[in-house]
Amino acid sequence: MTDRLNALTNELQKRTENFDAALITSEVNRMYFTGFKSSAGLVLATRDEAYFIVDFRYYEAAVKKVKNMDVVLATDFKSELLKIIKTHKIKNILLENAGITLAEVLRLEAWAKDAGVSFIKTSALDDAINSLRAVKTEEETQSIKTAQEIAEKAFEKFLPTIKAGMTEREAAFELEFLMRKEGAEASAFDMIVASGKNGAVPHAQPSEKKFETGDFITIDMGAVYNGYHSDMTRTIALGKVSERQREVYNLVLQAQNRAIEQVKPGASCKDIDAVTKDFIYKNGYEGCFEHALGHGVGLEIHEKPSLSVRSKDVLKPGMVVTVEPGIYLKNEFGVRIEDMLVVTADGAQNLTSAAKDLLIL
Amino acid sequence: MTDRLNALTNELQKRTENFDAALITSEVNRMYFTGFKSSAGLVLATRDEAYFIVDFRYYEAAVKKVKNMDVVLATDFKSELLKIIKTHKIKNILLENAGITLAEVLRLEAWAKDAGVSFIKTSALDDAINSLRAVKTEEETQSIKTAQEIAEKAFEKFLPTIKAGMTEREAAFELEFLMRKEGAEASAFDMIVASGKNGAVPHAQPSEKKFETGDFITIDMGAVYNGYHSDMTRTIALGKVSERQREVYNLVLQAQNRAIEQVKPGASCKDIDAVTKDFIYKNGYEGCFEHALGHGVGLEIHEKPSLSVRSKDVLKPGMVVTVEPGIYLKNEFGVRIEDMLVVTADGAQNLTSAAKDLLIL
Repeated sequence: MTDRLNALTNELQKRTENFDAALITSEVNRMYFTGFKSSAGLVLATRDEAYFIVDFRYYEAAVKKVKNMDVVLATDFKSELLKIIKTHKIKNILLENAGITLAEVLRLEAWAKDAGVSFIKTSALDDAINSLRAVKTEEETQSIKTAQEIAEKAFEKFLPTIKAGMTEREAAFELEFLMRKEGAEASAFDMIVASGKNGAVPHAQPSEKKFETGDFITIDMGAVYNGYHSDMTRTIALGKVSERQREVYNLVLQAQNRAIEQVKPGASCKDIDAVTKDFIYKNGYEGCFEHALGHGVGLEIHEKPSLSVRSKDVLKPGMVVTVEPGIYLKNEFGVRIEDMLVVTADGAQNLTSAAKDLLIL
Repeated sequence: MTDRLNALTNELQKRTENFDAALITSEVNRMYFTGFKSSAGLVLATRDEAYFIVDFRYYEAAVKKVKNMDVVLATDFKSELLKIIKTHKIKNILLENAGITLAEVLRLEAWAKDAGVSFIKTSALDDAINSLRAVKTEEETQSIKTAQEIAEKAFEKFLPTIKAGMTEREAAFELEFLMRKEGAEASAFDMIVASGKNGAVPHAQPSEKKFETGDFITIDMGAVYNGYHSDMTRTIALGKVSERQREVYNLVLQAQNRAIEQVKPGASCKDIDAVTKDFIYKNGYEGCFEHALGHGVGLEIHEKPSLSVRSKDVLKPGMVVTVEPGIYLKNEFGVRIEDMLVVTADGAQNLTSAAKDLLIL
């Protein structure tokens, strides 16, 4: 965790010289730097010392757990901040733009002028943190792996229970329950269970629609473990498939395998997305895969890098990304297959082990 | 829903004259005014017309459901906003300070100057919305009632399964599962199951501690239904209780009953809190009840009004509030009893029906 604070200072110095301290306000980024989960609190990191300011609900537990910062008990956050500002003669504080509300900024600004402090509202702090978080340590990757194992265990237990007449909502509920039983802290996101025509909507919500023979069923699911997320999608068939379904399934699988081969250090995220879309479009499904090919996964379900049309990201060892092409045929059906990979020194390791050959239950 | 937009304009006019439109950005407040749940979108309400701007994922469903606004499909939110701004010759837009991040404000401001628009960052919009949301319609109260009924059914089913050796975490998991089975969309908040010494910590998280004979077990739980929350706390005993436990329990119950009697239109929220604390302190437990007596409940688990030391709120018919006194004895045990009430024309109706006499399982 001390390493992370040093890395932050380095990343910030690449982006700006003009700062004395950084104020970290979002729950997820406080957790990233402290290793401690709290619903309220502030991290103020100067160039050489960091402070974690918490209220009485968290103070004792934080003192035990957080070793890379001074843990400060606050009844009034403002006066604790002012003390630190005075001690370190702080003049400029970087704000986490995406992690602070306008109301909080206005409250800070109400007293900052008198204290001789100004706030820097560039994207430097957000960019630096996103860039750090994109590259996982082994410990972080291990948590993501465990989250994925939990999701797969639940999926394996769920498969034999699928039958015609079960609703999408019942399936999602059962899968979430199974993940929690296997040790998930939570579902990583609102699970997608989309069958038949619903599968043609990439972001479908589980409905009261019943599974029917001949349906493709797309299940997009993930677990949270140690605060880290996992993400996997499988499309399975119920009873039988048409030739068209089989063709589309195999094309998506082929597209995914080709994309996975390109996941390695130095690869342009935008290019992998473009090449995969191109492959699907040229094979007869122009315009049927419009969402991003993938995204980073970690303390949040969507983080850097982005494998998408406008991405400027380049893959680095330690990044954990999804690869999730799909083909969506309006009013017919949809297929999506998603694995999660960690970029290694010379390629990538697939963290997903659930089978991908077309499964007809 | 059109009523809500009119009411918003009225509330805003009480607070400020200087606005042409209000920009509603938070998910919860978009839902309040549109009746439609979406993870992204914007509501722009002018003095005489309102717009709900959504992307392709929500457009079709929103058109069907939202009747009090023009639903606008956006590929680019900025250009849709600019069109509306031009049509209505909008110069000043109120922002929802607590519902927008600094990053979003900076993005808006980047193009607003060129468009001749400025943003108003007073608390007028937040205050107006909070004030409206505090007073529930019958339909809203009905959703809260249903959420509470779901929680109570789960609680009733759970009670006979409690036994020594069950962990707090197992209990919380089972209760959440039962609520979901009864139709809850989600748990209303991270449930509290705190036994023995853990009960002395008002905000305890469910731990691996096992229930033991002689424990008080505090269960603070709620369900979500139609987006609306419920909130209830019961403290039950396992096997036996000491005289001291019985005394403390009965004192909390007495304090709660006295507080409930004071819930009526015109009552000062601060006073009800003060009188209840005073009653507990004067009966031998000085300083053992320091948190707020209660809070409003609705689309969020904590909303206006606040029954607390610094509150300026006054009760009005239609407000839904909790009344939750407790006594916390460090390293010994704790008791909290919480009901949820709706303020009526001349008093209050208790929405909680679970028994409150000391239950020894």
